[in-house]
Amino acid sequence: MISFDFSVPTKVLFGAGKLESLRREKMPGKFALVVISNGKTVKERGYLDRVLAALKTQGIDYLIWDAISANPGKDEVMAAAQYARDNFCDFVIGVGGASVIDSAKAVALMARNPGDLWDYVVTGSGKGLPVRNPALPIIAVITTAGTGSETDQWMVIDHRELNEIIGFGVPTTFPTLSVVDPELTVSVPPFLTAVQGFDAFCHAAEGFISKAATPISEAFSLQILRLVSKFLPRAVQNGGDLEARTNIALAGMLSGLVQTTSSTTSLHSIAHGLTAYHPDLPHGAALTILSAAYFDFFAPYVPDRFIKMAHILGASTDNMDEAQKPFEFVKAMKILQENCGIADLKMSDYGITRDEMEKMARNAHKTMSNLFAMDRYTLSLKETVSILEKSFR
Amino acid sequence: MISFDFSVPTKVLFGAGKLESLRREKMPGKFALVVISNGKTVKERGYLDRVLAALKTQGIDYLIWDAISANPGKDEVMAAAQYARDNFCDFVIGVGGASVIDSAKAVALMARNPGDLWDYVVTGSGKGLPVRNPALPIIAVITTAGTGSETDQWMVIDHRELNEIIGFGVPTTFPTLSVVDPELTVSVPPFLTAVQGFDAFCHAAEGFISKAATPISEAFSLQILRLVSKFLPRAVQNGGDLEARTNIALAGMLSGLVQTTSSTTSLHSIAHGLTAYHPDLPHGAALTILSAAYFDFFAPYVPDRFIKMAHILGASTDNMDEAQKPFEFVKAMKILQENCGIADLKMSDYGITRDEMEKMARNAHKTMSNLFAMDRYTLSLKETVSILEKSFR
Repeated sequence: MISFDFSVPTKVLFGAGKLESLRREKMPGKFALVVISNGKTVKERGYLDRVLAALKTQGIDYLIWDAISANPGKDEVMAAAQYARDNFCDFVIGVGGASVIDSAKAVALMARNPGDLWDYVVTGSGKGLPVRNPALPIIAVITTAGTGSETDQWMVIDHRELNEIIGFGVPTTFPTLSVVDPELTVSVPPFLTAVQGFDAFCHAAEGFISKAATPISEAFSLQILRLVSKFLPRAVQNGGDLEARTNIALAGMLSGLVQTTSSTTSLHSIAHGLTAYHPDLPHGAALTILSAAYFDFFAPYVPDRFIKMAHILGASTDNMDEAQKPFEFVKAMKILQENCGIADLKMSDYGITRDEMEKMARNAHKTMSNLFAMDRYTLSLKETVSILEKSFR
Repeated sequence: MISFDFSVPTKVLFGAGKLESLRREKMPGKFALVVISNGKTVKERGYLDRVLAALKTQGIDYLIWDAISANPGKDEVMAAAQYARDNFCDFVIGVGGASVIDSAKAVALMARNPGDLWDYVVTGSGKGLPVRNPALPIIAVITTAGTGSETDQWMVIDHRELNEIIGFGVPTTFPTLSVVDPELTVSVPPFLTAVQGFDAFCHAAEGFISKAATPISEAFSLQILRLVSKFLPRAVQNGGDLEARTNIALAGMLSGLVQTTSSTTSLHSIAHGLTAYHPDLPHGAALTILSAAYFDFFAPYVPDRFIKMAHILGASTDNMDEAQKPFEFVKAMKILQENCGIADLKMSDYGITRDEMEKMARNAHKTMSNLFAMDRYTLSLKETVSILEKSFR
């Protein structure tokens, strides 16, 4: 019987031009740490200046931390948290892609808690200690679309020395306010647009076949699949297509809501197993590379749900053998990947070799065991290796 | 282009047996006013005792206010608010149907604000003054299914002397926590089950054709229509069918989320115009009586959305004249009403006479003008009278 808890603590301002509304929103503090990446985009395109102007309008002071890398490491966020604490910042604003928003969450949490982030992380070699204090309030201004960090509590942080990339979060690491302004995403280049959009696709599909699925997450999942299949090829082909960007930004925001009302599955664990050893491989690209073998494996275990997803992607299963129907989802997904120019991604292009498969499978099981528990069939290590091997090219 | 703000400040515990979880939830205060109706159900069936036991477990003190009527009047909620203030209650728990939850919101608001509720009401003869202080925190334990008061900020209160029934709310009148336990709804008799479920149906359909519709509300609306059309006849026919009750409770909870992410339209205004003069007419029955004429009128103005809703209700529009297609929604709705035993409701059964149509239309326009502004075509008074006359039997 249906049973779930529903809580979405984040207020979202969604729409082209919405960044301007930030100046009219009540800020959760008086002194912000503004966290951005070590790249150029948010500075050169004026996104940072517009956020700072909104703060100035309201008389809010701020400091800037501009050293977050694409795969944010634990040491980076611990250093930023120390800086926030030493300067008595009372809230954190992340302006950037999902890595920056994830980092802002980690900074907000560790600015208010003793010790190390890995003292609290609950999987891998994390000590799983109870978090003592709530995180500082967090505002997210997202400039990419797909991962959904703007509407969930999760942060994916990289412990480089241990090769552990772990998703972690607590109820107070939900952003209190998120700005999802699709105009900010027009600068994302085609390849990243495609693989980040495919992250939303995987959140939708994993959340739909997950044990944790709820009637609310299911509505979000199906809408994401509709939006991504219709608009991601357009956003990839023409980055200036604001209608496509808007609908993919919506899919991204819903992708976080799926996380909040359901959960991803072991596909995300395995993808983190890859990037733990090869941080140059973007998260969405890892998901894309693994997706066909992964969903092929699970299709027979949750046939009804795969068939429903296949139909949403426009596939017909009329006059088809019952056992074949669920696999139509995978076929339709591959066509979508072709239309987005990401059907031919290879592990070997990122320096991954065939002899790493078992190591990466072990890493996935060890560091993100919690997501394997969300699958409706429990993958063995051997089966995980087999999915990786089938995905290797 | 899509643009909206999204905020759902209510945490929901959903599922059969969930009332037991209340004892493990953090309470928002130390001294509760527990608001219940003047009827017997919540006492006789033990719902009240179970809520009080949860409070006692946590060492929370409480007082009980057990005098809320089925159409809660302004004077009732003002008296309860005075009682809460005089006794220094610091939060309010409503245990009952939507009228009780609405009343709990009004009590929580007026316990913390000077003057009269109608000083703040923004339509009708309300003065529209700014609300000075946030409401006391509100917990909702809902025992009916359909209106969605458990997941929105709205309270519908009756100003008897002025014949004004007005929906009103502010951001702090969202419940902080709601328990939606379908087991509590098995005691609702068949007729009320049907008309309350039809309230959810109308929230869904109105929210879908409303100017305020958002991509998120649309997903909720379509899911409600699916759930109500599949499960409401079963819940009406066999009140002990817990699967049907669960799905209708879900539709009810989503019905509030549609309110929160979209808005009803003038159908709700007109229905309140009826009940303002005939408080014995249940709200859902008023909606049911008006629904066919109302949706018949609007079908040509929003044809695509009516066709989509028709399909969700299982209607086929293949090989049909384009102009006819939107009306299939109304036909399918009438069949659903028949299957729920509410197709033959008559205004005259509630003492309404034909010469009241203009008075009620004027009341609707005056007291709830805000919802007429949500329609995609603006109804004149004459057209409103015509919808009422067509609905009269």
